[in-house]
Amino acid sequence: MSEKSPILVSVQFDGNRTGENLSNSLNRSVIDWTKADKPTSLAGVKYALVWKIDPDLFDRMPDLEVIFSAGAGVDKIMEATHLPDVPIVRFVDDTLTNRMSEWVCLQCLMHLRQQRTYDQLQDNREWKELPQPQASEINVGIMGLGVLGQDAARKLKMLGFGVRGWSRTKKSIEGLTCFDQNETDAFLEETDFLVGLLPLTPDTESFFDRSVFQKLRKHADLKSPVFINAGRGRSQNEKDVLACLQDGTLGGASLDVFQTEPLPKDSELWNAAGLIITPHAAATSDISALGRHVEKQIARHEAGEMLENVVDRKLGY
Amino acid sequence: MSEKSPILVSVQFDGNRTGENLSNSLNRSVIDWTKADKPTSLAGVKYALVWKIDPDLFDRMPDLEVIFSAGAGVDKIMEATHLPDVPIVRFVDDTLTNRMSEWVCLQCLMHLRQQRTYDQLQDNREWKELPQPQASEINVGIMGLGVLGQDAARKLKMLGFGVRGWSRTKKSIEGLTCFDQNETDAFLEETDFLVGLLPLTPDTESFFDRSVFQKLRKHADLKSPVFINAGRGRSQNEKDVLACLQDGTLGGASLDVFQTEPLPKDSELWNAAGLIITPHAAATSDISALGRHVEKQIARHEAGEMLENVVDRKLGY
Repeated sequence: MSEKSPILVSVQFDGNRTGENLSNSLNRSVIDWTKADKPTSLAGVKYALVWKIDPDLFDRMPDLEVIFSAGAGVDKIMEATHLPDVPIVRFVDDTLTNRMSEWVCLQCLMHLRQQRTYDQLQDNREWKELPQPQASEINVGIMGLGVLGQDAARKLKMLGFGVRGWSRTKKSIEGLTCFDQNETDAFLEETDFLVGLLPLTPDTESFFDRSVFQKLRKHADLKSPVFINAGRGRSQNEKDVLACLQDGTLGGASLDVFQTEPLPKDSELWNAAGLIITPHAAATSDISALGRHVEKQIARHEAGEMLENVVDRKLGY
Repeated sequence: MSEKSPILVSVQFDGNRTGENLSNSLNRSVIDWTKADKPTSLAGVKYALVWKIDPDLFDRMPDLEVIFSAGAGVDKIMEATHLPDVPIVRFVDDTLTNRMSEWVCLQCLMHLRQQRTYDQLQDNREWKELPQPQASEINVGIMGLGVLGQDAARKLKMLGFGVRGWSRTKKSIEGLTCFDQNETDAFLEETDFLVGLLPLTPDTESFFDRSVFQKLRKHADLKSPVFINAGRGRSQNEKDVLACLQDGTLGGASLDVFQTEPLPKDSELWNAAGLIITPHAAATSDISALGRHVEKQIARHEAGEMLENVVDRKLGY
């Protein structure tokens, strides 16, 4: 049996998640590029698992065969200069999918059931029932129908919401009314809660702006429409989000992603009325699952099978 | 065709819901008992739709054939003196079931995803990701497996939670691990989030107390265990809920029902840390659906068919 190629890992783990979990679930030696003592040569290293990367990292890897993204998105990798012509594999995993759907369902339910208003009533010790539409009166429109979008759609539907889906090219998904890029206005006009699960590409950069929010549908008994984004911060125009919350074009919003992360202390978004903020925590990659995913794909690659969830370079996701 | 019997209605509608909607969905004349000009005789009135009732109301109704409850619970009717020996029909309806599941799923997701802590972080403009177990690491234990409990169980499972069910007598429900009254400790010991959907009966009065909360399971990375009650306020010992939240026996709670409603302004519950309060609004009866339900059951009754969802007087629900 031949020696296993080591893997270069360039993922900055935060306090709660340790590289140790990852090392334990990888069956090969790990070169941690975030540590101080970087090796001078990376010859013979076939695999890289990366999130944010040094611009010239890949130049040092003459034998690189596969790039693995540590998350569902790959925009930070696509921006690298000197990107070698090897497959880039996105991280798709049940744990990540389930976490994202937890977050999306939670946000939709919080806006439906007027949680922020009930929070205020509780603070004021006020017992007051609000007019309450039920989920079936609300259409959630999901933009992005990959694994994450489809799973969220299925679960929101089961919770009783009306659900619509949008993707660049038309998809046919059982039980889901789907729209494509030529039907965007029709999609927006029947959407009360707009959920963004889009990858960041030149087409989606700053897509979510006032002109989009203005087209959404408004329910008479609810602070709506609502904009919910867990895709990428740079797909939203944050000045428009803030202004639309202030002038009532939007009744509420939930943002997990931002143009600048961490969101700066002095951002006006922090205390915007009706806006729920989480710190890019909607669907944190499970580190053990990430390790298993990488090993599984390497095994496929070395057995001559097709890699799964390979990025289309032209589309950028 | 014979004259349709009028129906006596004794339901105090709140600001948002009008008796008009109910009258529109009933195909018979309505005697509104909450109005000032009460008729002196109710002879010939076969049906009553009630929530809270005057103690001697039924004494005035010699021809009463069916009592309809305006909600899923009937404890307020069962407490009436002079309760005549006629069927009591509970309100069971998809709109009510779906609303209850919305609320239960929302509360479970808020505690799972640490919404109260993220709210505080947002108030403090602090960008900080919390350790986050996923739903599959949490067991939700539902006490009460009627229509509401079964629907909530199905939806929580689909969201990824581990789900257990408890009912007085053992039930067999596909895909759900069920416990009965002889297995209560075993049920509690594998429950992280305890959901109460029990009717109020002598057996359930003050059931949810410290001795119950102490048996629940605690997840290392989450403020837990959690107590969630949307059944009846009198099934909970509120002093124990408060003390257990304060001493950490409970990590969080969500209450929609209270021993005294409206919850008094000076209750210490209002600002208890980790407690989410809603004003008995989890599953407000849809007034139009209530009218349709009553007409459907009257039609069955007059055609000689069995009434549905009739209360078992011995069990009290």
